[in-house]
Amino acid sequence: MLDNPYYSAELHGPWETYDAGDLSLEEGGTLRNLKLAYSIHGTLNEAKDNAILIPTWFAGTSKLMEQIYIGKGRALDPERYCIIVVNQIGSGISTSPHNAIMPQNEANFPHIRISDDVRAQHQLLTQHLNVPELALVVGGSMGAQQTYEWAVRYPNMVKRAAPIAGYASNTSHDFIFTQTLIDAIKSDANWSDGSYNSHTEVSEGLARLSRLWLVMGWSTDFFADEGWRQLGLPSLEKFQEDFITGLFTQMDPNNLLSMAWKWQRGDVSRLTNGDLAKALGRISAKTFVMPIDNDMFFKPKDCKKEQQMIANSEFKLLHSIGGHSGLFGFEPDYLDQVDTHLKELLSL
Amino acid sequence: MLDNPYYSAELHGPWETYDAGDLSLEEGGTLRNLKLAYSIHGTLNEAKDNAILIPTWFAGTSKLMEQIYIGKGRALDPERYCIIVVNQIGSGISTSPHNAIMPQNEANFPHIRISDDVRAQHQLLTQHLNVPELALVVGGSMGAQQTYEWAVRYPNMVKRAAPIAGYASNTSHDFIFTQTLIDAIKSDANWSDGSYNSHTEVSEGLARLSRLWLVMGWSTDFFADEGWRQLGLPSLEKFQEDFITGLFTQMDPNNLLSMAWKWQRGDVSRLTNGDLAKALGRISAKTFVMPIDNDMFFKPKDCKKEQQMIANSEFKLLHSIGGHSGLFGFEPDYLDQVDTHLKELLSL
Repeated sequence: MLDNPYYSAELHGPWETYDAGDLSLEEGGTLRNLKLAYSIHGTLNEAKDNAILIPTWFAGTSKLMEQIYIGKGRALDPERYCIIVVNQIGSGISTSPHNAIMPQNEANFPHIRISDDVRAQHQLLTQHLNVPELALVVGGSMGAQQTYEWAVRYPNMVKRAAPIAGYASNTSHDFIFTQTLIDAIKSDANWSDGSYNSHTEVSEGLARLSRLWLVMGWSTDFFADEGWRQLGLPSLEKFQEDFITGLFTQMDPNNLLSMAWKWQRGDVSRLTNGDLAKALGRISAKTFVMPIDNDMFFKPKDCKKEQQMIANSEFKLLHSIGGHSGLFGFEPDYLDQVDTHLKELLSL
Repeated sequence: MLDNPYYSAELHGPWETYDAGDLSLEEGGTLRNLKLAYSIHGTLNEAKDNAILIPTWFAGTSKLMEQIYIGKGRALDPERYCIIVVNQIGSGISTSPHNAIMPQNEANFPHIRISDDVRAQHQLLTQHLNVPELALVVGGSMGAQQTYEWAVRYPNMVKRAAPIAGYASNTSHDFIFTQTLIDAIKSDANWSDGSYNSHTEVSEGLARLSRLWLVMGWSTDFFADEGWRQLGLPSLEKFQEDFITGLFTQMDPNNLLSMAWKWQRGDVSRLTNGDLAKALGRISAKTFVMPIDNDMFFKPKDCKKEQQMIANSEFKLLHSIGGHSGLFGFEPDYLDQVDTHLKELLSL
């Protein structure tokens, strides 16, 4: 295991760990000794019908989801619901390249797909937590990809779904954007085909990735209005260096690459031989499709096309000057919008 | 001079060459023995009031401008106007890193600013071509940056201006986007701080740059609608590999870096101590500000802010599914819009 203090319980815990055993992978082969890290907020009721699942996004953790989206009096209220947040494979908290056991560690970590995560989460819920149904699955970005996969793969178990700022079937445009993130890391000679000794050796590649995130992950309006001031940062330089680059350069390059590869290929139509309408037609969950208006890669227009293929669905456009990174919830108004929509959805 | 068949007269000629001598640079120092390559379409009339200037965009040439924007019966009609297209410094056609004389060649090429180009063009027009005024300056992208600089720097000479898809003062967002293009080249170990022996050694960096262009230089709608078919290309792969990557990998990395550095810093308010309103207030030209609706870096909203600071101006939004690369004019409807607006402007 590579030493990396970023993925510590001090920063992202506490979490529970579920030993999922060996997971058969969609790409073939097996991920050995999978450990899923999750946190639970609230208690499962006697009827076992108040569970909510939140899968995590690219480079995110269960702690982040808790801090941004969960709270007393809010839509995701732990006094009312049993909210289970599961860290995705590759996140650095669950089994990931930097912490996997030999011989699947680091550069030898196998390719993971969204469906692998969702099947592993299904096992956690049904075999370990005794959760028979989900009142809601909600997630942003790659969390939305997992939300769609849940609703298509296990339609009887998912009563409601709220994919925020993400696609059921990734676009070719987003695939290439994600490829530029991958390029940013792999172009660092110190990445050494994944066999570096410390993530700090790959800091130039991670810094390049952070600049791409800055360009595409926010919005031009955010720059024009100096949105970083809303984050308490006095200048673009501080925002760029301390917040964005400062964040990504703490992470493990192979972990990010594992998630990016997965992100590129998210596509529920793999369950229906490429027929997206057929896949989305399987969804029985009441579904709110919730893109962010200024998002530069998960565009509302493309999300709407998917929403229109889901029978019991509504389109709820969120406003954030942050673009895709509005997901970080730095605007009280954004959080209010999310809560309003989720409360409505949970009342249906 | 580095051998590079891309910058040949066979591909981009014919052109005339003006020996501008030594150019004092805004960054200090001198560019020695500057040669400006230009082409002329049409004849200057006796009143000398029918000259139109077109500066070129990033990685573009005078040939491209001619092929896309000039033609009999069109707004830029060589039977009516004397249309002068000047290749920008760094373009590979005018003096550029790959063809500059020692000791300013290649990695030692000095930093050039938009204002350096515009002062050199002014010298070409007034001292060599005997053009006393410009009926119109029109250009796209970096050509728009030069157009704004012309209108602010030489207000008495510029009667009309049409900056298409570009800013008078570059945004911090666009600066960072352009930085990612620079990163893509400089992260290639074979770039060798600009001292490579052939552009072909830097093909990986250039290919990375091309992927960034693909993500930001077009639009998500272009991908959703498979816009490459309008370019006669059967698949995204062919579009990406043959058209985009195939184009950029022929170019000289130091040339692209020179233009990118210039692009990042385009700002007419350098003439007025950072006061953009004051700079744009100097413009006396009738000005049509013409952004493209789907442009991902030169956003209509930000262009409108600048237009509103120009006294005698109108905002003319162009539609293209190509986003910024709509400038390539692959849609007849886009060209019709441009011609309609330019004809109106020239009639005023």
